[in-house]
Amino acid sequence: MISVEEAQRRVLSAFKPIDTEMEDLAHLAGRVTAEDIKALGDNPPLSIATVNGYAVRLADGEAARQVIGTVPPGHPFNGTIGTNQAVRIFIGGIVPDGADAIVFREEADDTDGALHFSSSAIHPDYIRGAGIDFKSGSVLVQAGKRITARDMALIAAGGITQAKVRRRPRVAIASVGDELSAPGEQRRPGGIYASTGYGLSAMISTWGGAPCDFGILEDNAAEIATIADADAELVVTLGGNSVGDAELVAKALGTTDFEMDSWNVAYRPGRPLLFGRLGDTPVLGFPGNTSSALVCAILFIRPCIDVMLGTIQNTCSLPQRFKCGCHTMTARLRHDLPATDERKTFVRARLVMDAGEVWAEPYPVLDYPMLSVLAKADALVVLPPNAAVSKAGDKVEIIPLDGY
Amino acid sequence: MISVEEAQRRVLSAFKPIDTEMEDLAHLAGRVTAEDIKALGDNPPLSIATVNGYAVRLADGEAARQVIGTVPPGHPFNGTIGTNQAVRIFIGGIVPDGADAIVFREEADDTDGALHFSSSAIHPDYIRGAGIDFKSGSVLVQAGKRITARDMALIAAGGITQAKVRRRPRVAIASVGDELSAPGEQRRPGGIYASTGYGLSAMISTWGGAPCDFGILEDNAAEIATIADADAELVVTLGGNSVGDAELVAKALGTTDFEMDSWNVAYRPGRPLLFGRLGDTPVLGFPGNTSSALVCAILFIRPCIDVMLGTIQNTCSLPQRFKCGCHTMTARLRHDLPATDERKTFVRARLVMDAGEVWAEPYPVLDYPMLSVLAKADALVVLPPNAAVSKAGDKVEIIPLDGY
Repeated sequence: MISVEEAQRRVLSAFKPIDTEMEDLAHLAGRVTAEDIKALGDNPPLSIATVNGYAVRLADGEAARQVIGTVPPGHPFNGTIGTNQAVRIFIGGIVPDGADAIVFREEADDTDGALHFSSSAIHPDYIRGAGIDFKSGSVLVQAGKRITARDMALIAAGGITQAKVRRRPRVAIASVGDELSAPGEQRRPGGIYASTGYGLSAMISTWGGAPCDFGILEDNAAEIATIADADAELVVTLGGNSVGDAELVAKALGTTDFEMDSWNVAYRPGRPLLFGRLGDTPVLGFPGNTSSALVCAILFIRPCIDVMLGTIQNTCSLPQRFKCGCHTMTARLRHDLPATDERKTFVRARLVMDAGEVWAEPYPVLDYPMLSVLAKADALVVLPPNAAVSKAGDKVEIIPLDGY
Repeated sequence: MISVEEAQRRVLSAFKPIDTEMEDLAHLAGRVTAEDIKALGDNPPLSIATVNGYAVRLADGEAARQVIGTVPPGHPFNGTIGTNQAVRIFIGGIVPDGADAIVFREEADDTDGALHFSSSAIHPDYIRGAGIDFKSGSVLVQAGKRITARDMALIAAGGITQAKVRRRPRVAIASVGDELSAPGEQRRPGGIYASTGYGLSAMISTWGGAPCDFGILEDNAAEIATIADADAELVVTLGGNSVGDAELVAKALGTTDFEMDSWNVAYRPGRPLLFGRLGDTPVLGFPGNTSSALVCAILFIRPCIDVMLGTIQNTCSLPQRFKCGCHTMTARLRHDLPATDERKTFVRARLVMDAGEVWAEPYPVLDYPMLSVLAKADALVVLPPNAAVSKAGDKVEIIPLDGY
């Protein structure tokens, strides 16, 4: 048996950052930058007022001011503020030459034609200096970051219309098994609906990949071998690859240019794991059980996509920030969990917030294979191999499932 | 001044769950269910083996077994297991009549034609009973839940091909201001690029809405009044609505059937807030500053979309779970924050994980208006009105920005 970490290392070594493409501003959200995005101009381009009020000179103190005009919204004031002069200005207005403070409108009185106020109404802070947000040429979004909604606004504020992003890695999915029917079809006696592909496709999309579902392949070599035609960066097979007489996927692909490596990975749920290459294309084979296969996807497909997108060292999401590539964080156990054997164990759990801390309430260990339990879980509690009994209150590593 | 909570209450009272539509299974991820989704059959439909091995009768104990056949993958075994008989079975195979345990293959020896093993190799647990995951008619996904990738697999396993979901609420966005240029255009002297609409559109998509960007409207009544034609559940205007001479949006809409309510909300950043109705359509007016407007969107647009989608009481995401509708959780402050005045204050912060706890490292308070600071923040620290100085180590409410 090999450890999960060793299996991840071997799988990830088959991937590298994918090629890039230019994308228009309007479609950048969720894409991953392939190079730093730099501002095309200062923001703000000139000093601007951050409140409604009057632009004045600090040096004139509390002296009454003569209001000589108004800054037109979106335009510079035509003139300069002199001694004891003021200019009406609105939020976002360009501060006129000569002014270095704003008198807050609600703290001033201009009923008699002149402007009166006390010194506490004069605010140099209410001017935002040119370039204080960012300067022309400064990096707005680093390479290898998934572009958020807030980044979108920042990129637009920098005048950007296009950016170089990583292409979405294509992941081909093939569900293998005579027992499978598509939802809407009649199930065979004792057969089940093919479900993993739907969950896996949605996960891959969420993680930034482009899923391509081959649908259901029957348990025969000719049909399984058709996946060799997939135009993808990764092929995933579901089912049909147990360590035993039913190693059909491996056998079927053996008729192609497939090089197989099959490991017994020290974890539950989810063994066995098949890994190999079809020509240049990596192939991952997952168990037929949907719940197990989706946990395999979290452990093995997600980091492959991270590597191809170049996010694994530089990510934007919170769980990723906490532990790059593994997407884990910490919680306290709500109740005891049994000792583990030589296998790393992933226990479905509900998360609750209590007294400002995150607590994990594990579902019963025997519920692993239940898809209904995985669907309602908020996280996987990660128990290392050969761990003693975990006690209520212990801090444990968790993989949050939020977002997929 | 009114509180943020009172403003939220008034705004939300204008919204109700939106109409529904049927959507095909393949496109359900991310949509919100309008009614419970119920399974069309048991899962698993029959008892199945969860390992490769031999189906046997527990009652026969350690006695050697005669292997009378193999369960064909995806098909029932044609026959019944009798005394001291066994049938070869693979993961996911249907357990033959008569069998009530599995002998794990790797713990058995069948080299001489008969099957030998010790009692420790006999596992009744390796049979998953019919319907143990879910039964026909049981609720797979409750009404008002955003469908996750894991739900997708669960729905497919239940044989579902379509489900009733909420329509995506349309949100029309109009950026108002003579100072605005689109990225790619020449900026006017002192003018800025229109950026809020890009960030807001991406946020609305993330939250489950359908954004419709009207682009840039000039500061004149005729052009602003065109938003009265928007076919949307919510109209958002950006800029042009400060409490002062520049109340252009309100004035322009005054020429239509607009009923305005404009409040001074006790929070920073982000005042003022305009709210009204264009006929039956609610209108929100946000400040022109992008950073402020995006915080307004988090506080006011997100819960409107939640109400329209019906998720506000029953959500699937972790931050939502922690505090429905407000999407907040708790962290510890990394350093002191000043006392607040009568305004609720939202401080941008970085989150770090330390010793198993989430810590918030606030950016300087004066950095509020900086879009670059909002873009790099992981959360907003929420300081109540009239709060004393917050000390390092204090537990504070945060709004995680993860995901948008």
